[in-house]
Amino acid sequence: MSVEHAKPDVAVVGGGPIGLASAWRAVQRGLRVCVLDAGEPGAWSVAAGMLAPVAEAQFGEDALLGLSLRAAASYPSFCAELAAASGCDPGLRRSGTLVVARDRDEAEALDRLLAFRRRLGLDVERLLPSAARRAEPALAPTVRLALDVAGDHSVDPRRLVAALGEAVRGAGGVVRAGTRATALAVEGERVTGVRLADGSTLAAGAVLVAAGAQTALLEGLPGGASVPVRPVAGQVLRLRDPQGPGLVGRTVRTSDAYIVPRDDGRYVLGATMEERGFDAAPTAGGVFELLRDISEVLPGVFELEVEQLLAGLRPATPDNVPAIGPGALEGLVWATGHHRNGILLAGLTGDLVAAALCGEELPDWAQSADPRRFAGVPA
Amino acid sequence: MSVEHAKPDVAVVGGGPIGLASAWRAVQRGLRVCVLDAGEPGAWSVAAGMLAPVAEAQFGEDALLGLSLRAAASYPSFCAELAAASGCDPGLRRSGTLVVARDRDEAEALDRLLAFRRRLGLDVERLLPSAARRAEPALAPTVRLALDVAGDHSVDPRRLVAALGEAVRGAGGVVRAGTRATALAVEGERVTGVRLADGSTLAAGAVLVAAGAQTALLEGLPGGASVPVRPVAGQVLRLRDPQGPGLVGRTVRTSDAYIVPRDDGRYVLGATMEERGFDAAPTAGGVFELLRDISEVLPGVFELEVEQLLAGLRPATPDNVPAIGPGALEGLVWATGHHRNGILLAGLTGDLVAAALCGEELPDWAQSADPRRFAGVPA
Repeated sequence: MSVEHAKPDVAVVGGGPIGLASAWRAVQRGLRVCVLDAGEPGAWSVAAGMLAPVAEAQFGEDALLGLSLRAAASYPSFCAELAAASGCDPGLRRSGTLVVARDRDEAEALDRLLAFRRRLGLDVERLLPSAARRAEPALAPTVRLALDVAGDHSVDPRRLVAALGEAVRGAGGVVRAGTRATALAVEGERVTGVRLADGSTLAAGAVLVAAGAQTALLEGLPGGASVPVRPVAGQVLRLRDPQGPGLVGRTVRTSDAYIVPRDDGRYVLGATMEERGFDAAPTAGGVFELLRDISEVLPGVFELEVEQLLAGLRPATPDNVPAIGPGALEGLVWATGHHRNGILLAGLTGDLVAAALCGEELPDWAQSADPRRFAGVPA
Repeated sequence: MSVEHAKPDVAVVGGGPIGLASAWRAVQRGLRVCVLDAGEPGAWSVAAGMLAPVAEAQFGEDALLGLSLRAAASYPSFCAELAAASGCDPGLRRSGTLVVARDRDEAEALDRLLAFRRRLGLDVERLLPSAARRAEPALAPTVRLALDVAGDHSVDPRRLVAALGEAVRGAGGVVRAGTRATALAVEGERVTGVRLADGSTLAAGAVLVAAGAQTALLEGLPGGASVPVRPVAGQVLRLRDPQGPGLVGRTVRTSDAYIVPRDDGRYVLGATMEERGFDAAPTAGGVFELLRDISEVLPGVFELEVEQLLAGLRPATPDNVPAIGPGALEGLVWATGHHRNGILLAGLTGDLVAAALCGEELPDWAQSADPRRFAGVPA
């Protein structure tokens, strides 16, 4: 079967926050954009939506940290612009994060994190247990130390994606729901469009691959022209307090788990990190460990209702830095491999992708994300 | 609104195992029966289906124990007759139960249970840890003692209810799906039918109340004529082994939790006991405790996928014995209050109810279940 489609300037493979933010920025620059959304929500639909650049970057991941700090700084204005454009509130909460230590080892790690954040010029307050419990009275009395990171906000990923979809459509972009891309169409050294699951081909001036963990399943690229992305499973529990909001106001995190409050008495408790291929079923062990770890610092979590168990697949590259920008073939642009940082980096990625689609070079500060660093690496 | 219905001999309020087994037996005796099934599966849909009369009866609950032992003895023939009548396999598994002790206190309790069962003439084998682990190699090496109760079988409650529905219809009974009874219709000292949620009334020669925990919400009875039934919430996890069956062959239970295998690599892990009204949402604390308790004896449970978290409401009477037989008004028959034993007692209850509907007295051994023992007790 072959069906003719109008030819857009850009076909976007993936209707998550990365694809939609990129599409929105591209439409704003005057490009005709068609987003292909397979209709199977990706990692974003499971994500808690923490905006925590320092806590999420491991020591030594300076390249990722640079991108994340820049994204965090611009997140409030990104959300404000998005809300105005879409008429939808993406659920930004500025209530901050409390990072807590359960024992001496963790307390020492917090002091190292404190020093690191201060070297970066970031606002952070060291709280002894009594002060931590004044800030969040539901904390267990056994908490040893806490850092109050007022600048680590959160956003509701589901509301964010809904707002981005509205923004794309409102600006004149097309979002094709329930449309799965199976392969890139390649002629010689040029990507010319996308093959769809119904057998048709969508020709496009350029193709943006923003397919998250599904990137690895996209066919059609010659060997070495792809970006190596592997799935890293993460489990979360979506919880609800029948008493309404108030158990905690801030995000609370330990070295092993975090709990992110929404405004309505709901919470997201996450998240495991498991490398087991494309299997993303919640497991008894994952659920148990998350509940054990967070209940050690927040015992009141046991009273919450479990609304959902979910697992998603984060897209990880070999160096944990995403791949953003032009690829090895003409007409091919990447925005994938965002791993634990897809929500935080969505707006920044959109800016970079739109610039790349207009022929601009990646700025110096984003060179670490250049997809061509993987040229020749087997996918 | 008032709609005329054909008048059955018996209207059964409740389409769970108790209502359906009673309907089946009543139809077999030549009665015209109409089962009203509200379409909201009750405790049975959450139940694991253990057939464990001794382990489920607390010390001092001799009346319940008498009913349960009788029901367990006749369960295989009940299932065989049901399978032949319905063409559906109710999923009886005769693989037995291993009751395990985690510490010395629990081991001493097992020895008391052993003596008790032997006094009752029931088959049970005492296994030291090495023998227990030969029987079920997935058991933790820390298990202190085990009882192998070969006679404690299990059944699949969902398959049981499906088979009972087929049997009722096959014998000429009517099951009205999605039909909620809201009240009993009473004229003087006589129950004359059932008022339905659509405003109509179904007139019937007699009404059997088999509504489980919903019994307490059924209106229309004068004060003191009802049976006091309260909901006791129970949470379970439905688990699945991606490797297929084989982790354990027997039901394994501790003093706090049990895990019941099905034939296909699925398991039911249960169950909490919580008195919190009609709120039956799964909680983080319930899930955590079940996983902690069973993982202490069966650590491999952590590798299982969590397919569902469920909670249901058991119907409990003040003395934990069900109410089976004629009530305080003419035309009123009860089959409710089965608490933790609804699956085990379904067949036996059906026999007793059908006899009562035909005017027979409760046999001596079932006098403890006489609903009239609650006469005058506020519901």
